[in-house]
Amino acid sequence: MDNNFKITSRASNTSARTAIINTPHGAVETPAFGPVASQGTVKGLSHSQVNDQGAQFILVNAYHLFLRPGTEIIKTMGGLHSFISWNKPILSDSGGFQIYSLSPLVKVKKEGVRFSSHLDGTKIFLTPEDVINIQFELGTDILMALDYFVPYLSSRSSMKEAVTITTHWAERSGKYFQGKESSQLLWGICQGGIDWELRKQSIEELIEIGFDGYALGGLGIGEPKSQFLETVERSTELLPENKPRYLMGIGYIKDIIEAIERGVDLFDCVLPTRNARNGTLFTSQGKLVIKNKKYEQDPDPIDKECTCYTCRNFSRAYLRHLYERNEITSAVLNTIHNLHFYLDIFRKIRQAIQTNSIVEFKKNIINIEEEEI
Amino acid sequence: MDNNFKITSRASNTSARTAIINTPHGAVETPAFGPVASQGTVKGLSHSQVNDQGAQFILVNAYHLFLRPGTEIIKTMGGLHSFISWNKPILSDSGGFQIYSLSPLVKVKKEGVRFSSHLDGTKIFLTPEDVINIQFELGTDILMALDYFVPYLSSRSSMKEAVTITTHWAERSGKYFQGKESSQLLWGICQGGIDWELRKQSIEELIEIGFDGYALGGLGIGEPKSQFLETVERSTELLPENKPRYLMGIGYIKDIIEAIERGVDLFDCVLPTRNARNGTLFTSQGKLVIKNKKYEQDPDPIDKECTCYTCRNFSRAYLRHLYERNEITSAVLNTIHNLHFYLDIFRKIRQAIQTNSIVEFKKNIINIEEEEI
Repeated sequence: MDNNFKITSRASNTSARTAIINTPHGAVETPAFGPVASQGTVKGLSHSQVNDQGAQFILVNAYHLFLRPGTEIIKTMGGLHSFISWNKPILSDSGGFQIYSLSPLVKVKKEGVRFSSHLDGTKIFLTPEDVINIQFELGTDILMALDYFVPYLSSRSSMKEAVTITTHWAERSGKYFQGKESSQLLWGICQGGIDWELRKQSIEELIEIGFDGYALGGLGIGEPKSQFLETVERSTELLPENKPRYLMGIGYIKDIIEAIERGVDLFDCVLPTRNARNGTLFTSQGKLVIKNKKYEQDPDPIDKECTCYTCRNFSRAYLRHLYERNEITSAVLNTIHNLHFYLDIFRKIRQAIQTNSIVEFKKNIINIEEEEI
Repeated sequence: MDNNFKITSRASNTSARTAIINTPHGAVETPAFGPVASQGTVKGLSHSQVNDQGAQFILVNAYHLFLRPGTEIIKTMGGLHSFISWNKPILSDSGGFQIYSLSPLVKVKKEGVRFSSHLDGTKIFLTPEDVINIQFELGTDILMALDYFVPYLSSRSSMKEAVTITTHWAERSGKYFQGKESSQLLWGICQGGIDWELRKQSIEELIEIGFDGYALGGLGIGEPKSQFLETVERSTELLPENKPRYLMGIGYIKDIIEAIERGVDLFDCVLPTRNARNGTLFTSQGKLVIKNKKYEQDPDPIDKECTCYTCRNFSRAYLRHLYERNEITSAVLNTIHNLHFYLDIFRKIRQAIQTNSIVEFKKNIINIEEEEI
């Protein structure tokens, strides 16, 4: 697993870099964004439409797939790629975040996590080894070790416990995974919130164990933006240069660019796809709320500069009509646009890094999420 | 408007025929099926996906579009084709059926129909001229005259009144439309239920007025199948040979083939698309209810003989998973399949008529809707 990450260029004035992550199902050029396909589909889109927007990989959720349809069925169907007929890389989240945020009853012990299914209350106990095994059987390309996540503003003692248990689980995950002799990649998740002492401890302990990549978890959960960015910056400085860095669940373009300038390589978020379904569309000029009456007779596309299928064919007036009529096609066309918009920004970011123009690029794009057109 | 219908072949042993309907937005080869796009979209699909399945035209609903977004807006946007960015033929239903079936308060007078919007109760009065004008402004290719429809088992006097008013409205529609000097086509709708005396009267009176095509309305609403077919047969025998015949709202393949053998050219129905969203899928072997547990680990496509995007890529097991998870993508992929299945059957029917093999074709296909695989 030594040759799975190659840095291809570095920006001279920031820590931004382009790189290639090699996985069993192909390469991912970074900085990259993975659309969320929790249940094995990007909501509303066919895989062909996801591909057309330029997605290099998708993110699925081990927790959801473990509950339904269940790992056994997916294994029987030849693994997740075969089951869902997606042949590019898949990153599976370990499900830690989902367990802690969705389950009504969670009890974390050193041995593992006991929780009740948010669907039917079934009591489930999972060890970190179980979670690796689930993802191993899914056959995903990038596996995430089980972590222990506590909310923002938790007491220092519970944050400390979260780091201790996350390290303990990471160690067991690494050992268990090594025994599998798989070409899949195992990444670790660092915790510690914005408490630098704890975050540093978490990162150092995970580096000591050794992973194919490192994720920053437990960020973007309510902490002040300056402390968020400071934590990202100090973390990437501490993380090994020659391994990919993944900032989990961060979706605002502004934050993404700041994080890329600080050396982050990988992102995922429901933001572009969820916002699309809610009728909030991104444009090069700002965000556009399609239900607004001012678009009732607007013949323009969402974004004149956008080349996606939706913008090449449909007016804001038609998209407003579909949204107001609650048509499924509204979710489809809006998702195509927002996903294309995101992936296009990542294409431009990679170019900007290669041409040393990321700082200029940022100036043009930094306020598109705050300003409504 | 004399050259808008050309018969291209006739089956020697039935009244089935192939033909071409020429419209301002291109030709439709018949027998043809139009997917329903009430609000200007086939629910769940992009126009590109509708095109890919081989749709030659779509059907929209003047009633729905008149209420929302309103004819004025669509006119301002350059007409319906421009508003929804669909450049093939569009047939617009007059909205009669929707007024009588959706509105809580309907009062039909000779002058027109008074009803309250099913959306907000607004009182609306429409004359047959208004309804032509709405469709004229929509710019659809085939306009339907406003008819008066009464439910199955209505009293004979109300059925008689419905025929009388339908003829009166048809006459006014024809006159009003002539004044427009449009290249759009105006079709009339015959009523009379399965009462042959009334149906005959309705047909003869509409022929006397003269339309570019003739629709049979008020059928497939609960009457016994034998009487339905007898009415279709006697109606087509009475209708002019050199004009297209349209059997409105009939969706079962079995009924469609019987009607085609009796000389019907055009069909529309929500059945394939609505069933798709409800998880009932059509196959060459019978219908398939995707939520059934037996498909949980089924690696086969919906139909091995089908060449649609869904069948080329996805297993029943994955489609069941998407359906059970209530994913939007379930509606999308299922609709692609059912629409492809329907349009493919129509392609095969046209071939079978041209090769005089429609009777043999029917034998293989007639029970696919009753039998569940």
